Amino acid sequence: MDRTEQTRATVRQYYDSLIERDWDAFVALLTEDVRYEMPQTSERITGKERYLRFNQEYPGDWQLSVTRLVADGSTAAASANFTVADERMVGVTFFELDGDLISRVTDFWPEPYEPPAGRDQLVERLPGEVDRFSAS
Amino acid sequence: MDRTEQTRATVRQYYDSLIERDWDAFVALLTEDVRYEMPQTSERITGKERYLRFNQEYPGDWQLSVTRLVADGSTAAASANFTVADERMVGVTFFELDGDLISRVTDFWPEPYEPPAGRDQLVERLPGEVDRFSAS
Repeated sequence: MDRTEQTRATVRQYYDSLIERDWDAFVALLTEDVRYEMPQTSERITGKERYLRFNQEYPGDWQLSVTRLVADGSTAAASANFTVADERMVGVTFFELDGDLISRVTDFWPEPYEPPAGRDQLVERLPGEVDRFSAS
Repeated sequence: MDRTEQTRATVRQYYDSLIERDWDAFVALLTEDVRYEMPQTSERITGKERYLRFNQEYPGDWQLSVTRLVADGSTAAASANFTVADERMVGVTFFELDGDLISRVTDFWPEPYEPPAGRDQLVERLPGEVDRFSAS
């Protein structure tokens, strides 16, 4: 398996282990000093024990499904739909690997917003149909 | 050049043409029926003439620099830092190609927000240092 395919498999396992709450499998995919970064809040978590706890303790009975996975050598990007009770969110994540293990995870959580005026003539609006919970 | 490297080159050209406002080069990278989608507003623009106009007419003297580019066969993902006057934004974009041309662009614009309480013991906050304008 080449580097890209190994990365793709590792990122799939990352999401599978989260979906299954298989914390042993999850932590086995991470380097000791893995960095988890949330640029929108300027937050960083360092180390696999802390990152494990962050996920174990994350509030709510969240569910996720992966909608895209782009793998490229030792890097990858993915998007996933998350639900927590009635709330729906999209997570967009970049991964960096060190060897076979994930060394950096950068998570973006883009929120819905109202479009600015002035581009109506170019745009159609398709509530609920554009990607948010239907990415192909 | 294999498919992945062709995609990488095309996405680089896409950003270069935006940076340079080289609209002939920009439009030459797009399929006739290219779709540009903004999931956060459920907006879609269809067709290269409309998508060209959207970019030409976008208000403000925006500047961009690409911070990540992940290419994988006929798909890619990227992040870029944008500035418009004093405003700074991150754009995260997924690309799909049809042959050598870009057929779908999905743009996310994640905004800063305040982190929820209860995870302070796991997290350090590094204002301005976590990715937002320093992605390696």
